[in-house]
Parts: sequence; structure tokens; C-alpha cells
Amino acid sequence: MEINEKSLELGSKRSVIRELFEFGKKRAEEVGEKNVFDFSLGNPSVEPPKEIAETIISLLSNENSVALHGYTSAPGDIKTRKVISDYINSRFNTSLSENNIYMTCGAAASLTISLRAILNSGEEVIAFAPFFTEYRVFTESAGGNLVVSTPREEDFQIDFEDFEGKISEKTRAVIVNSPNNPSGVVYSEETIKKLAEILNQKEIEYGKTIYLIADEPYRELVYDNISVPFLMNYYKNTIVCYSYSKSLSLPGERIGYIAVSPDCKKSDKVYLAVCGAGRALGYVCAPSLFQKVIAKCYNVKVDVSSYKENRDILLKNLTEFGYKCVKPDGAFYLFIKTPNFDANEFSERAKKYNILVVPCDDFGVKGYVRLAYCVDKERIKNSLPSFKKLIEEYK
Amino acid sequence: MEINEKSLELGSKRSVIRELFEFGKKRAEEVGEKNVFDFSLGNPSVEPPKEIAETIISLLSNENSVALHGYTSAPGDIKTRKVISDYINSRFNTSLSENNIYMTCGAAASLTISLRAILNSGEEVIAFAPFFTEYRVFTESAGGNLVVSTPREEDFQIDFEDFEGKISEKTRAVIVNSPNNPSGVVYSEETIKKLAEILNQKEIEYGKTIYLIADEPYRELVYDNISVPFLMNYYKNTIVCYSYSKSLSLPGERIGYIAVSPDCKKSDKVYLAVCGAGRALGYVCAPSLFQKVIAKCYNVKVDVSSYKENRDILLKNLTEFGYKCVKPDGAFYLFIKTPNFDANEFSERAKKYNILVVPCDDFGVKGYVRLAYCVDKERIKNSLPSFKKLIEEYK
Repeated sequence: MEINEKSLELGSKRSVIRELFEFGKKRAEEVGEKNVFDFSLGNPSVEPPKEIAETIISLLSNENSVALHGYTSAPGDIKTRKVISDYINSRFNTSLSENNIYMTCGAAASLTISLRAILNSGEEVIAFAPFFTEYRVFTESAGGNLVVSTPREEDFQIDFEDFEGKISEKTRAVIVNSPNNPSGVVYSEETIKKLAEILNQKEIEYGKTIYLIADEPYRELVYDNISVPFLMNYYKNTIVCYSYSKSLSLPGERIGYIAVSPDCKKSDKVYLAVCGAGRALGYVCAPSLFQKVIAKCYNVKVDVSSYKENRDILLKNLTEFGYKCVKPDGAFYLFIKTPNFDANEFSERAKKYNILVVPCDDFGVKGYVRLAYCVDKERIKNSLPSFKKLIEEYK
Repeated sequence: MEINEKSLELGSKRSVIRELFEFGKKRAEEVGEKNVFDFSLGNPSVEPPKEIAETIISLLSNENSVALHGYTSAPGDIKTRKVISDYINSRFNTSLSENNIYMTCGAAASLTISLRAILNSGEEVIAFAPFFTEYRVFTESAGGNLVVSTPREEDFQIDFEDFEGKISEKTRAVIVNSPNNPSGVVYSEETIKKLAEILNQKEIEYGKTIYLIADEPYRELVYDNISVPFLMNYYKNTIVCYSYSKSLSLPGERIGYIAVSPDCKKSDKVYLAVCGAGRALGYVCAPSLFQKVIAKCYNVKVDVSSYKENRDILLKNLTEFGYKCVKPDGAFYLFIKTPNFDANEFSERAKKYNILVVPCDDFGVKGYVRLAYCVDKERIKNSLPSFKKLIEEYK
């Protein structure tokens, strides 16, 4: 082969979300942009907090421009790392130092770097369905294999019997994504405690380290005072992959971090392997201006109230119309069970009503679609009659 | 192994440059910062052009903040890509479109993505010594092996006999870095023409595609009206890896691009493989604010006159003192042959005079040190007496 077959395959695969996007653009030309109800993209619709622009302007005015835009050390600016570790400690009563924090180009980079740091060829990573489809790509590109654990369908918490059966001597890591994309479900403290208990047992049984990777881009997007357990406090061998994409509405800026628990077995070596993996993948340092923005805005958050309003309107009305939805406690996704258990058919039929939702078979659960409600409230309200007509077709 | 051995090794290796940096900091405390002549780092010392900050402030004031910081498409904002392809066409008389341009997080990302797009396991990549040491890391992390071609020592142009001997049926790519880090040498048009001629022959001989990867972060840093041949105009199967780190003094911001020549064999597939490789490595998109900055500042450049002044002062004086230096036509490095042909010994001895230069054995040429003259002119001038004393030790 004249090029890398796997890279070509990954680059060539038609993305469902991309196709919906293209359809939406075409449809907008025909019926007007405001009559297309595009719920396909997880792109934050809430503005970044005003502190972001203010901080950028202040940095440009007051800092030496060579230093501001210059290389930071590979793991990141030491002041930024210190601010982040202090902040995590103050919120979660942990004892991180700046030497547990590695700044990254966002959550995808956090994951690819973490996986490459710990995985050896042929080892397995367990993800709980429904899961972000790129987990498979990232795991395979680090030489591992993804194993999918089926959830309890009534509440999408972990099905522990299924999970235990999926752990083997090949298991090196388990990925937890809570709040979850695409279901919006937050794992309860009970779930996390049980998960940690099983992992501790299995580590002893197989005489090996099993890492828990906490993929947490949606940590700050929770509603109704739901609390998201901080996994390091429940399990020692934990690596947190964080991103500011959603919490600060900066998805394009590619800024996040990896936090290696100081309680990890040989934590310092895991951290060094993270540094080495970042180097091998070509991540020289995270974007420097935004590292310095984070040092000032580490505790700022977008206003999630409009996401909550959207969720409430949709959940109430769609349920009344007869849709079966998983109640999302976080993130900005509504996971809808399709009336005929055929996600592709439903998504296709919804297009007639200019409703764009993502069929989720690839996320590891059959018969569901994902509705991303990070859009403006008017759009949500205007879509309701179409949702009503759509489900009536199935009655 | 409980973690990935190779990642641990890459993260653990003591970097010579890092150690020099630490030494310099310690020494500065003892003798004062201005008496330490740290020439170890390739961090631009010239300020970014004023247009950068002006453009950022204008974007923050005039653009919708959700769109400004939002995801762009994975290959990059289409307007930015169009501006770049048009600019390249106008300068080099090529016929690129936006669909030949893939925006990246800087040169290291451009290289890791390009290599992963084209390499299959066990294939070889040829680099010409002296070469940027990370080429080996990037090649191996994409599953390939680096093969080093020894240059003509009189002028550090390609030794074609050596080069031809290094090409085999396993060769998939050749990396050219001109202007060169660490020598500052620019390949002449004659060199490039001969290189292309040999590659064309070898492609026929082996019945396969051999890619030329042009690693061009120093393209705009050239002196005395030297022109840098644009490789796409000499060889069809060319992939250009560009970065704005040096040309706009933005090394920490991680912004650059890959340009796949439209004349490449199956150019569209190579581009798709680039997209797939970026995805596998976790590069979701290049930082969005700086993509939009580049769309406005694509033709802006830092003022290279101070680099040139530094080069001239050093080259003239060091040569007079008895040092043998390669004349750099570009970049901001001076490549010095050590008097006793022992780079490590020389670098160590230089520390006595608070001179920090990088021993370059790892760059593939024995007995040379690299002096990065991207520092202020006063520092250069003040270092001269120390350089004089240093060489006198060898007489």
C-alpha cells in the first residue's frame, strides 16, 4: 500500500454527523435557516464567559508578547499547572501538585496521550455503552482493543454483571464518561463505589494495574444540584482527562489537561509516560495564550441555565408526545429511544420534518438517537410541533 | 509492563537542552542573568508583528464569540485554508485549493500526522544529517524507521552518493529541512533538482511512491536575498509541513499547516489519509482563534533584520577568533565545529565561561555544537570576549 490504509480508512469514512450537517445546510436554503431543527452537533451554544475576552486583552496589553506566545515547558506553564492542582485540591480535597498536571490540546489529546502512556500492544480498554465513538479510534491507534460493556437499560448506570464478565487479564484501562455523551447520564456515587470495588478485586485477582480514565469534558454541565463524584477519591489508579471546551465554551481552542492521581501506583512514572506519549504524538505544548487564560479563569464557568431550560422544555414535551427519553442530569444531550427501535430509520424519517438527530448505533446502544440541545431556546420551542407530528407517524 | 515502556523512555530521557536551561538558571542566580550567555533554545526572540495582537483584539470585538472559539471543521476553517492556498499559489505559481490544506497544531503535529498518513509498519524515512532529533521519535511513533544520510561536510548540502545508497525498497519518505535546524544551511536549487531526479529514478526502479516531506518552519527566516526553492515545484509527491512558530514568533500557539501537492499520486487519498491520521492522534482541529488570525495575517512576517545582525556579528568574530562555523543562510542557528571534535567536552567546557551551546551528536553529525542566536544583540556582543577565551584554551 502506497499510504497508510488505516489512516485512509479513518479519513474516508463518511461521518453521520457531517452528513446531517450538509443536509441541514441544503435544507436551510430551501425552507429557511430558522425552520431547520439541527440537533446534531455538540458545539456549545452559550457564549464564553466575558472574563475570557477580558483576560486575553489584558494579557496582550500587559505581558511581554514573546513570552506570552512562546513555548511553555512540554507539560505546560508551571503557574497554570499550580493553579489547576490547587483548585482541584480545594474542590475535591485531593493532594495534587503541579507535577500531576499535564496541559493538553483538549479532551481528545488528553485521551490519546493517556492511552499511549499506559497501553501495550493487544491490551484492552473497557468503555460503557453508550460511548463517544472516538474511544475506539483512540484505543486502536494506541495499539489496544476496545471492549464494550452493556449498561442497565432502565437508567444507563453500569450493569456490573456484564462489566465483570468483560474484565480479563488483558484489561489495562476502563473509561468512565460522566456526565455522559450521548446519554446525559451522571454516574451515582453508589455506581462509582461499586466500580472501584470491582476494579480493586480484579487488580488483585490478575496481579496487575488497571487504570480508570475519567473523561470529564462535561463535569461542570450538571443540573438540579446533581453532584459528580471525583473518581480519584474512590479509586487510586485514576487518570483524569479534562477539557475546557464545554465549561468555558472554547471547543475550538483545544485546551485541557491530564491529572494523574498522586495515589496511582508509580504515579511519577505514569506522569513521565504521559510526557513521553505527548512527545511521540507531536504535542509540543498546549496553546500558550490559552494556558495563561486558564491560569486566570480556572474557576469561571459558562451559565448553564439556558441548557437546563432547553432540557426541561424538551423532556417535558417529548415525554408528553409519547417519546421515551433518558433523563439527562448533565451534558447537553437527550437520548431518545426510537419508537420502532431503528435509529437510522427514525433519523431518516425525522429529516422530513427538518429535524436532525444522530442515530447512535455506533455509540454501542441500538435503537436510540442523540439530540444535542445546545441550541437557542426559540429553536427548541419551534421544533415541538414537528416532533409531535413525527411520533404520530408511528402510532 | 504496567505502562507503555516506550512512552516512559521518551518521557524519562534527560534532554540536553533542558539540562542546559536548568544550569543557566542556577548560574544566573550566582553571576547575574545578564552574564549568562544562553544560546541553547530555539525560542524566537523577535516580537510577534503588531498585527497579531491587533487582529486578536479586532476578532474579539467584532466576531461572534461562540463561532470565534468554536470547533472548525477537522481540516480547518475553510476561509483560512483558502487564503493560505491562494497565497502559496501567488508566491510559487502552484495550483493548490483549500482541499490541499490541512491546518495543524504546529510543525511537530504536521510531521507526526503526515508520517502516520503515509507510513506502514517497518518502512523507512530518510533524513539528512544534521537533523532535528525529534524526526526519529516521530518516525518511530508512526511505525517506521529513520535512516540517516551523511552530508557533504564542506557545505552541508546533500552527499548524493551516500543518499542513493540509503534508498531501498523500504523507503517511503525523505524529509528535507531547509533552512536547516541546526546548521542554518539552505539547500540550493541545484541540490533540490538533483534530489528530485534521483527520487524520480528510484520510484521507477522500485515501482513505488516515495514522498518528499518539506519541513519548513524556517522558510521565512533567510538572509541576503537567498531564495528557498519550493519543493512542490521540483517533485510531484511532495507534502509541505509548515508552521507559523518562527515566521510570526508564535511558537507556543501551535499553529501551522500541511499542504499536500495536487500533483501527488492519488493526491485526494493522501489528503484523506492526513485527515484520518490527525483524527487517530487526537487532533480535533487546530486552535480556532489563531486559525482566524492567520486568515488575516497570512502574509505578515517578523522583522528578521535583528537575527541577521546577530548572525553577522557572531560569524565575523568567531571566525576571527579561530572557530570554524558553517555560514547560515537561514534559520537562527550557527553550527560550530568544535576545536577537538568533541561536542560534549566543548559544551561542558563552555559552561565555565557561562556560554551555553547544544552538543549535536544526536543531530547526526559528530563534533559540532549548535548556537541559537535568537537572543538580544547586547547579549551577543557581551559574549564575544568569553568565546575568545574559550578557544584559547584549545591552542
